[in-house]
Amino acid sequence: MSRAHRPLRVAMIGYAFMGAAHSQAWRNVHRFFDLELTPEMAVLVGRDAEAVAAAATTLGWAETSTDWREVVARDDIDVVDICTPGDTHAEIALAALAAGKHVLCEKPLANTVAEAEEMVAAAERARAEGVRSMVGFSYRRVPAVALMRQMVAEGAVGEIRHIRGLYLQDWIVDPEFPLVWRLQKDKAGSGALGDIGAHILDMAQFVTGQRLSSLTARTETFVKERPLVEQAGGSGGKLGASAAGARTGPVTVDDAAVVLARTDGGALATFEATRFATGRRNRISLEVNGSAGSLAFDFEQMNELQHYDHSLGDRAGFSTISVTEPTHPYLEAWWPPGHGLGYEHTFVNQARDFLVALAAGEDPSPSFADGAQIQQLLAAVETSSAEGSWQQL
Amino acid sequence: MSRAHRPLRVAMIGYAFMGAAHSQAWRNVHRFFDLELTPEMAVLVGRDAEAVAAAATTLGWAETSTDWREVVARDDIDVVDICTPGDTHAEIALAALAAGKHVLCEKPLANTVAEAEEMVAAAERARAEGVRSMVGFSYRRVPAVALMRQMVAEGAVGEIRHIRGLYLQDWIVDPEFPLVWRLQKDKAGSGALGDIGAHILDMAQFVTGQRLSSLTARTETFVKERPLVEQAGGSGGKLGASAAGARTGPVTVDDAAVVLARTDGGALATFEATRFATGRRNRISLEVNGSAGSLAFDFEQMNELQHYDHSLGDRAGFSTISVTEPTHPYLEAWWPPGHGLGYEHTFVNQARDFLVALAAGEDPSPSFADGAQIQQLLAAVETSSAEGSWQQL
Amino acid sequence: MSRAHRPLRVAMIGYAFMGAAHSQAWRNVHRFFDLELTPEMAVLVGRDAEAVAAAATTLGWAETSTDWREVVARDDIDVVDICTPGDTHAEIALAALAAGKHVLCEKPLANTVAEAEEMVAAAERARAEGVRSMVGFSYRRVPAVALMRQMVAEGAVGEIRHIRGLYLQDWIVDPEFPLVWRLQKDKAGSGALGDIGAHILDMAQFVTGQRLSSLTARTETFVKERPLVEQAGGSGGKLGASAAGARTGPVTVDDAAVVLARTDGGALATFEATRFATGRRNRISLEVNGSAGSLAFDFEQMNELQHYDHSLGDRAGFSTISVTEPTHPYLEAWWPPGHGLGYEHTFVNQARDFLVALAAGEDPSPSFADGAQIQQLLAAVETSSAEGSWQQL
Amino acid sequence: MSRAHRPLRVAMIGYAFMGAAHSQAWRNVHRFFDLELTPEMAVLVGRDAEAVAAAATTLGWAETSTDWREVVARDDIDVVDICTPGDTHAEIALAALAAGKHVLCEKPLANTVAEAEEMVAAAERARAEGVRSMVGFSYRRVPAVALMRQMVAEGAVGEIRHIRGLYLQDWIVDPEFPLVWRLQKDKAGSGALGDIGAHILDMAQFVTGQRLSSLTARTETFVKERPLVEQAGGSGGKLGASAAGARTGPVTVDDAAVVLARTDGGALATFEATRFATGRRNRISLEVNGSAGSLAFDFEQMNELQHYDHSLGDRAGFSTISVTEPTHPYLEAWWPPGHGLGYEHTFVNQARDFLVALAAGEDPSPSFADGAQIQQLLAAVETSSAEGSWQQL
Repeated sequence: MSRAHRPLRVAMIGYAFMGAAHSQAWRNVHRFFDLELTPEMAVLVGRDAEAVAAAATTLGWAETSTDWREVVARDDIDVVDICTPGDTHAEIALAALAAGKHVLCEKPLANTVAEAEEMVAAAERARAEGVRSMVGFSYRRVPAVALMRQMVAEGAVGEIRHIRGLYLQDWIVDPEFPLVWRLQKDKAGSGALGDIGAHILDMAQFVTGQRLSSLTARTETFVKERPLVEQAGGSGGKLGASAAGARTGPVTVDDAAVVLARTDGGALATFEATRFATGRRNRISLEVNGSAGSLAFDFEQMNELQHYDHSLGDRAGFSTISVTEPTHPYLEAWWPPGHGLGYEHTFVNQARDFLVALAAGEDPSPSFADGAQIQQLLAAVETSSAEGSWQQL
Repeated sequence: MSRAHRPLRVAMIGYAFMGAAHSQAWRNVHRFFDLELTPEMAVLVGRDAEAVAAAATTLGWAETSTDWREVVARDDIDVVDICTPGDTHAEIALAALAAGKHVLCEKPLANTVAEAEEMVAAAERARAEGVRSMVGFSYRRVPAVALMRQMVAEGAVGEIRHIRGLYLQDWIVDPEFPLVWRLQKDKAGSGALGDIGAHILDMAQFVTGQRLSSLTARTETFVKERPLVEQAGGSGGKLGASAAGARTGPVTVDDAAVVLARTDGGALATFEATRFATGRRNRISLEVNGSAGSLAFDFEQMNELQHYDHSLGDRAGFSTISVTEPTHPYLEAWWPPGHGLGYEHTFVNQARDFLVALAAGEDPSPSFADGAQIQQLLAAVETSSAEGSWQQL
Repeated sequence: MSRAHRPLRVAMIGYAFMGAAHSQAWRNVHRFFDLELTPEMAVLVGRDAEAVAAAATTLGWAETSTDWREVVARDDIDVVDICTPGDTHAEIALAALAAGKHVLCEKPLANTVAEAEEMVAAAERARAEGVRSMVGFSYRRVPAVALMRQMVAEGAVGEIRHIRGLYLQDWIVDPEFPLVWRLQKDKAGSGALGDIGAHILDMAQFVTGQRLSSLTARTETFVKERPLVEQAGGSGGKLGASAAGARTGPVTVDDAAVVLARTDGGALATFEATRFATGRRNRISLEVNGSAGSLAFDFEQMNELQHYDHSLGDRAGFSTISVTEPTHPYLEAWWPPGHGLGYEHTFVNQARDFLVALAAGEDPSPSFADGAQIQQLLAAVETSSAEGSWQQL
Repeated sequence: MSRAHRPLRVAMIGYAFMGAAHSQAWRNVHRFFDLELTPEMAVLVGRDAEAVAAAATTLGWAETSTDWREVVARDDIDVVDICTPGDTHAEIALAALAAGKHVLCEKPLANTVAEAEEMVAAAERARAEGVRSMVGFSYRRVPAVALMRQMVAEGAVGEIRHIRGLYLQDWIVDPEFPLVWRLQKDKAGSGALGDIGAHILDMAQFVTGQRLSSLTARTETFVKERPLVEQAGGSGGKLGASAAGARTGPVTVDDAAVVLARTDGGALATFEATRFATGRRNRISLEVNGSAGSLAFDFEQMNELQHYDHSLGDRAGFSTISVTEPTHPYLEAWWPPGHGLGYEHTFVNQARDFLVALAAGEDPSPSFADGAQIQQLLAAVETSSAEGSWQQL
């Protein structure tokens, strides 16, 4: 490693589930990838001084603050990493971009299309000043997903006929699971739709290089009332039923969303996102069928990619590629073949892509505009579900 | 076997793919199941005298005829088994029922709702005379599917939240595959929708005991023009590309259909039927998620059923039940545990159920009314696709 | 079908599990395969007149007899099909061959090497008179296994390094399961070793074209005493624990056998056969690794073959070939792609190969000599286990 | 986190594959687990000053040294972590223990039984002074493997009948792959046997709580001569074929080892370790069958455990437990259910166990004595293979 390593000072807002994952990325990315820019975990920001201090000790941040406005304005901060619930994304991102900080913002980009569009405009203005922004669709960084995109681009699938996407979870199957912020529309924007549906929609477009051109959809809230959270301070998605109190409140987001769509490439697509698929902990699956073959991914086997090559005739079959070869995306940095990665590595790989783009003076991807397009899809799903109609995109 | 075995004389109309499968059932059913009624393969009927004679020799029918009207009127025929394309189902069934013959009719029941309703009315009239009728949704007779229904009824799934059905094939992926009768609306009624979509819709309702209450759908024809069949006489659905001629004609049915639906039990359902899922030869999969657990079936592993029991807590996982125990549906008649059945056995099991009902003087299931309800679903899919609207059922 | 069909009259001795499977084959083989010789189910032979008569009615045999010696001497019998326990194979086969009847004998060929060698000599003598003989290693007729052999022969595996064979069952896990004939050395010869170990050893040699050249092994009897069978007449492998009486007797065969071996082609092989692999109903798996690739088969997915092609570099992965294409072994006779076969079809395919060889005046395979070589392997396993030594073969 | 965190200064010797994995563990363990002792990455030691400096920068070690003797004697070092090839383990460990340092030593413990026994004696002496030692069988720390052990202990398997262990790799299938240190007996001690066979033997004993009591085995070297490594400095086990030169040298270790064994609990066991299982990148599988059920693990799905519960009767089947629940071993520290871990996390979990034991003043497990027992098994395998005999253990 002969080239100079320049430090890049990061401030992160929020420290729950996503904050822990991002911290792991900033801590380790330069230990595996040979990068020009080395992240420094400078400031962790949260509302509760004591809690943020404890989190900073655990996660390894040098300083803490309870005032994100002050932090994003500091001269010694280069990057603002937004890991808060969606209702605060726009305000923080706008301030950070205005202060000339590069921004990495968790998905979904915002809770509304209007907010998202405002963020896109701000990102465009900042871009003219060399300020970069990116939205965190981390599953793009699963090596098997990146390889899937690469193989589609190389023609492995041919003309795409079908896209089949699922994101299935089951963490709120029990009616006694409490009314955490992810089940409240004012905080989370939507439910399964924005939390996990956004991922599978983005993944499908990312892999195929096609965009949805029209859709019809249906959302559903199976359990309409849940116990309020009694326990103080809990913010994580991992909060269990034990935190439930005796009083209840209304669930204001969807539990599940199903979508039929057509793409600008003439494919027929189906999507389902749900938190009620009992037994499916975190099944993210995407299958693409085309004139030349098929590709299929399932996050439950995240280090594998299924490939069917139609040209092999009666010797063809879906093959399971172990996406752990040094020539596969991101794998030059990791372990020997067959020694797979885990969930958190998607964030390390994401940090790598972000830092490489910054070092090169290029725009990282996906952009805020990409995030806003997903936001439009989410809005179209909600409108379609309310109206029972197809939405043109 | 102490009880008397009474012969039951069968006439079968049609002898292509379904005719071969039904013949195998009539030939073997009483060799495995202990039945009061023993089928006799009396008359095989087809349009071409030479071809039907050859088929009868191969399949083991005693006589042949080219005149189905004459045959269904014969006094020495007890059962009429209809294995022709859908455009002739109604006419044959009506004549057979009028002549007092029990009728087993392949699915889909008819090519239109009007025909189907006429058949239901005829079946009702005949029923008063002790004449029985059944429609051939053979996949209900897969032991794992029958066990799935039984377990749903026992409460293994609880309140049903999600139904996810796929029927994926790939036999017409190549644009050079010829325009066989299954791709012509006047013969087949519809394409993937009626041929395989009917199966997965029926299976979902059969297993869950719920009916679709509303749906929205989209059908698609990817390859709109195909070579005409040049080869004379070919009748099989699975005619290869080698039969393709130089002239082409329009494909008048759907290649694929996708459906969102709600059930009368409050579940959210998705269905997909396609002949363009490259690499998926005959994947029929059905998953049901509910408050107490989940069940999943995939015909590619037809002797297995997946079961998730939510009550097992952190020791729960999808278990693979080998549906080959003597206590499982139909299995008392077959091989030792672990020695699985194949595709054709669904027809043997179906014949068993038909013969048992006849012997008991009961109505076999599914009835023509059940078949007509599926026909209504198929019509609703086509209307929804044309109009872009939800259809109430 | 223009060519003449000549009848071939079969007498079958024994009618339990294997007898039912063979009956199914004789009844159906000519309904799927276009054969010159058409089997006629002439005489069924058993010790108990009443039981054999009932079985003949169920299975569809024209006549019955309690005297196999008389039957094998009859002028109107062409083929003798031996489905009895192993202790009677030699005597029946010798008599049948001496009487000029073609013989199909279930595996293992005999209970001892001496008997097997006597049978080989008799088969050689009869062969000079145009009398054919075959031993029934039915799993060779699984289409995926036949394709596996074909692909090895074509070079798909290259130089073979490893052979890994398992035959796992669990039907006697419960100590209360009774002492059926398969657990008695005088009837069955050996336990898991001869019953299922013989299959996996034969399959490995058949698929690779290599023979074991040396081995070391260990057999084990976990449950040494079991309840005697109280129920009269029961002979089948399917007999349940309910047939157990209060008195017990010694288990005189192995419950399990494990083997290390080398082949004449330089490969290293491992085998395991057991009736104590709880949860594995009938898992027969064979994997072959070589310089050019790997192939793997598992009977639990009997219509699939796994193939790894080393030449595909970082796009290589084990592919799942659906062995249901008309161009795959035996499949020209069966159903469309994706519509798989079941256990019993191995016997139908076996009958096809036997009848084709007879019609062509050729020796069917595997021969009695092939069966005797397996018998030598079984004997070597027992000797090795007793002595703790490697056996040269 | 209210309790005081005490720093623990670590020196690591060696920085190739294992060094990178251990560094990742020391860097992150206290970010996930709440530990009393916090590791500090103090000194990295290697032979080449420039290379070790570069590695320290990449991996995040504060200082470097080329003299391990000096480092292990330093007052400011608490732990010595040995990640060198096996030929140096004994010497370093003896010196470190003599200097009163806690030692974590990579497996296999040594290259010979004599060395291993010397290390055990030294560890015993040091133990009297409160100095701890542990050998690094990292796969024990896969949560699914730890859960498997726990479930065996709880009785999920009952009386164990069969143990079936595989460790299959394919990284030296190509004869042109060069003669790296792992293929040289003086450096590595043995080949597949010690490198990966040691893991599967340890895992089997760890999970079942039983020890091998006798064994017979066979080792094999398929490719006996390979190109010498031309490229300077390369130390990694996973050096590619591109490093191969024109001259060749003899392979002095085994490519594969197969083992039959009996345990002190009466079970029958088979093991296979190979680097020639083409297409199997890093398949580590262990299945245990017993009177009450079965458990099976496969590292290719490292976040899953298969469980068969015999008591469930005809609803029993192998279930796939997603070992990602907070109540599963190690999982209280990681991500939400369904968000799996990767290879490297085994080392983080191992570091956790080591640090917890040190903080509690207890002996971490597995001990040097455990490592020496594995060394005896490896020696018995080699003796058995040479002599063709069973070895009592």
